[in-house]
Amino acid sequence: MKNNPHIQQSGIAPDVEFGKDVRVIMPVNLYGCTIGDNCLIGPFTEITRGVNIGNGTKIQSHTFICELVSIGDDCFIGHGVMFINDTFSNGGPAQGDKTKWKPTQIGNRVSIGSNATILPVKICDDVVIGAGAVVTKDILTTGIYAGNPARKIKSNVI
Amino acid sequence: MKNNPHIQQSGIAPDVEFGKDVRVIMPVNLYGCTIGDNCLIGPFTEITRGVNIGNGTKIQSHTFICELVSIGDDCFIGHGVMFINDTFSNGGPAQGDKTKWKPTQIGNRVSIGSNATILPVKICDDVVIGAGAVVTKDILTTGIYAGNPARKIKSNVI
Amino acid sequence: MKNNPHIQQSGIAPDVEFGKDVRVIMPVNLYGCTIGDNCLIGPFTEITRGVNIGNGTKIQSHTFICELVSIGDDCFIGHGVMFINDTFSNGGPAQGDKTKWKPTQIGNRVSIGSNATILPVKICDDVVIGAGAVVTKDILTTGIYAGNPARKIKSNVI
Repeated sequence: MKNNPHIQQSGIAPDVEFGKDVRVIMPVNLYGCTIGDNCLIGPFTEITRGVNIGNGTKIQSHTFICELVSIGDDCFIGHGVMFINDTFSNGGPAQGDKTKWKPTQIGNRVSIGSNATILPVKICDDVVIGAGAVVTKDILTTGIYAGNPARKIKSNVI
Repeated sequence: MKNNPHIQQSGIAPDVEFGKDVRVIMPVNLYGCTIGDNCLIGPFTEITRGVNIGNGTKIQSHTFICELVSIGDDCFIGHGVMFINDTFSNGGPAQGDKTKWKPTQIGNRVSIGSNATILPVKICDDVVIGAGAVVTKDILTTGIYAGNPARKIKSNVI
Repeated sequence: MKNNPHIQQSGIAPDVEFGKDVRVIMPVNLYGCTIGDNCLIGPFTEITRGVNIGNGTKIQSHTFICELVSIGDDCFIGHGVMFINDTFSNGGPAQGDKTKWKPTQIGNRVSIGSNATILPVKICDDVVIGAGAVVTKDILTTGIYAGNPARKIKSNVI
């Protein structure tokens, strides 16, 4: 090794606020976020500063939740779901200029399939996002949405 | 921390059954599954209860294999592949009601490209699934399948 | 356990060459690669033998970078991005026959969105790849590319 890198360990930072009866399967990288009651946080997940997760919500393995994301109650976030706050609106990453980041707000009882990608959007209550979908626009009516880019494929979720 | 979460460590549970000469690169989260001879299990993978993996099959990094999935011999499962057993058929997760989960059966010599998403389906022998594909229906004839949703793009795999 | 698997630990192999002021968030699996000055390597990443990463490039969490990939300066590689060198050109994995692997060359100031999948291609300088895109062909002119398969959606990146 020519130079030694600066090594930082993943883990649960002391500033994470947990509700009651939260289950976490290590290894994870959690910092600066708030997790509600009765949540599950699967292994190989990263949840970053300012994220707010409601009660009874399950975050499955391999998922990344970035700053400015808020998730409601009783949601199911599948495996390998990636949230995004930086749309490269200037042709590249905002490089820490957070005025260029955009928020994502997920309602209650929203289920997001595995490997879905969620651009900065608002998703209302009682929505199902199909596995592998890429959500690029706000979703303001209940239903099932899938594809890349995601479109409504069914108006009722049942 | 307002409350202390229940922390569980990933690892290889004592109930995992391994064939001969299996190589595992930690960290992984394996429990209740059966892995055949000469398999490779890459890092940051999760393989859950009841999964059956045949001989000579390679599971690459970042892949999640859920309950009710069976994979044959000499398969190659790429990086970041997500298997699914719960199609949210009631508008949300089955919440532990396993009668609503559906099985996936992968044949022999099936190669699945990285970042592919596999809904509960049957895939026959000698199939190639392209990287990033979302497989939503049974695949019963050999060939190369790609896209979201996945469609046959070539009848012969060579 | 019927048989004991061969267990290998992830980590930073002694043959990784780091430039100045690189930050690495563990756990990662890095071996045989070269990382430039001022890079960031997020958690749950794997970077393999022969990979070359330029100065000021950021590799976010859950990303896998395979052999024969070279990435320029000041790039941003999102979360869960998967690179590929084996296109299963013989109907299945090359099984270690590296003459069948193909290289990927990423220019400078390239930003790749989260959950994107990059087949073996050449991408020129100043390109943005949308989140969830599957890049299957060379990209030789600047612009924004998205979708599965990825197509140019805008000629200017700003």
